Amino acid sequence: MRNFDQATLAYADSPGIPELIDAIRGYYGKLGVPLEPDDVLITTGGSEALLMTCLCILDPYTEVIIPEPYYPNYTTFVHAAGGRIRALPTCPEEGYRYADRKRIERLITKNTRAILVTNPGNPTGVVLDEAEMRMIADIAKEHDLFLICDEVYREFCYDDKFGVPTMGRFTDIQDNLVIVDSISKRFSACGARVGCVVTKNRELQQALLKFCQSRLSVATIDQVGAAALYSVDDDFYRRSKEEYRRRRDTVVSGLRRIPGVMVEEPMGAFYVMASLPVDDADKFQRWLLECFEDNHETVMFAPGAPFYETPGKGINEVRIAYVRKQEELERAMTLLAAGIEQYRREVMGE
Amino acid sequence: MRNFDQATLAYADSPGIPELIDAIRGYYGKLGVPLEPDDVLITTGGSEALLMTCLCILDPYTEVIIPEPYYPNYTTFVHAAGGRIRALPTCPEEGYRYADRKRIERLITKNTRAILVTNPGNPTGVVLDEAEMRMIADIAKEHDLFLICDEVYREFCYDDKFGVPTMGRFTDIQDNLVIVDSISKRFSACGARVGCVVTKNRELQQALLKFCQSRLSVATIDQVGAAALYSVDDDFYRRSKEEYRRRRDTVVSGLRRIPGVMVEEPMGAFYVMASLPVDDADKFQRWLLECFEDNHETVMFAPGAPFYETPGKGINEVRIAYVRKQEELERAMTLLAAGIEQYRREVMGE
Repeated sequence: MRNFDQATLAYADSPGIPELIDAIRGYYGKLGVPLEPDDVLITTGGSEALLMTCLCILDPYTEVIIPEPYYPNYTTFVHAAGGRIRALPTCPEEGYRYADRKRIERLITKNTRAILVTNPGNPTGVVLDEAEMRMIADIAKEHDLFLICDEVYREFCYDDKFGVPTMGRFTDIQDNLVIVDSISKRFSACGARVGCVVTKNRELQQALLKFCQSRLSVATIDQVGAAALYSVDDDFYRRSKEEYRRRRDTVVSGLRRIPGVMVEEPMGAFYVMASLPVDDADKFQRWLLECFEDNHETVMFAPGAPFYETPGKGINEVRIAYVRKQEELERAMTLLAAGIEQYRREVMGE
Repeated sequence: MRNFDQATLAYADSPGIPELIDAIRGYYGKLGVPLEPDDVLITTGGSEALLMTCLCILDPYTEVIIPEPYYPNYTTFVHAAGGRIRALPTCPEEGYRYADRKRIERLITKNTRAILVTNPGNPTGVVLDEAEMRMIADIAKEHDLFLICDEVYREFCYDDKFGVPTMGRFTDIQDNLVIVDSISKRFSACGARVGCVVTKNRELQQALLKFCQSRLSVATIDQVGAAALYSVDDDFYRRSKEEYRRRRDTVVSGLRRIPGVMVEEPMGAFYVMASLPVDDADKFQRWLLECFEDNHETVMFAPGAPFYETPGKGINEVRIAYVRKQEELERAMTLLAAGIEQYRREVMGE
């Protein structure tokens, strides 16, 4: 980006700059998903990809099935389009897994337009296995629903059994499939705001293109930088994944040492969802910030309830993002253990 | 931007980086509009400011009054929110002026939520004078409507009688007023995608902030660059305006030399809308591209009809953007004159 030398910072092409679209096509090609230039529309982060997709496929009172807990901003994107979320319930006891045909089909009504899966999952770290992916693809196909796959954590998949998962490999659901992607996590470039939406559905491409044209373009310099990022070699992804796998192991083993914590080892993304032996994770978090310290340090997490659509769920759950260095995560787990012990004694009277 | 030295390209604050918000506050302060930090939300261009504003204030079947011809992307933003545009008609014979209290009030219904004015105007170049601004502010206040002012062309105002116009000066309509702004035109930095929405309405601020949070942030590096742009001295704006004034004069005098063209001298922005002595500007444009050449050159404009909501209007009108250098604009007017003459003779059989 430092070498950007265009004399004028002009609008880029509305669908994205050709060099970035080509870079993304090259990346998907390596995953076994051949894409035409029109199949890729560059967006201002995965966020805009999701908002535009919702605006295209949802009408007032139509519904999207989303496994809960889910990324809370989905609510804003779906509601902005007038749609509603039908939550597919999961629970910590089952490791938040949701790929159950009966449970999914039970939620389908005449108003259902789409199933949205985050794979690997935020906040749960759940990764669909090959059979689960196929089954969900089949449901979308049989019921003629859009299958929106938010795959922004694709490279952070710690199960090497079946490679890097993408629904894009199922060629028989091309007209139903929308993949949301982003460079934010892949290259740790959140502040660039560069994502994309990938679909082979021609009608949807045209509708998305209208929204792309209405906001003129994605930031030019950030697209140039994003295209360059895709030139990293495969070893970058491997090293990145190994680093996060170590961080996951640190956090999960730390959590497992705390009595009363329920946690499944997440297979992807860089989050772990856990159930804590406290009455209310939000209240516990406030207490950690206001009343707890160990050598002038405390610890923060994301309370679980906002990740649920269903009221009352996730009250004693938390999402921990393992995006800090090893030693910080080690220390964080020690602080969490000490915090839980002291909170249970002093506040809960155990 | 070349000197950006943060180690990680992280998400910026959702409302925008403080240094850019402060720079914008400084700029508005000089215009006599004191702003608090919360009054400014940085957006991905003026486009996102408009989309978010529509999503906040419109419900299905509610209406926005917009003078036509207008910037065609307004349609997408209003429709995305489920709203409808009530076009306030203008005509080339009246120089596209629209500030008529009776004509505006006639369009207000129980479903009206807002009046949207582009000032200076795209595509017409119309600039509201002081009394017209006050009258429209009064209508918004009396009928309790939002007044959305798209002021992205603010610095391009060739009428020096009353300085740089901004509705922000009317302190009595603070709760009704939403100003849409952008660095794209002001600093010729379209590709940065940095704009903002300015409002003192606290409830609207909160709603807009939710949309800002849902898309996480605006590109970090572009915000850093935008903040730096606001450090230009006042002479930059003066020189910029003088350059565009000369370009306007070139285009308007060129158009006036062509028999049958109807054109009013635009007072702002960098567009001129004109009515041509042809049957259909879109057909004429295609003919210019396919059948006309003079020394291997031809000329392009934007046909007028897409700027109108009302079917059938603007058929023989065009919007000319005078964003090229003087000599190119001189040549373009010569080509247009020759094109019109030949088209009328060969195609229209005059």
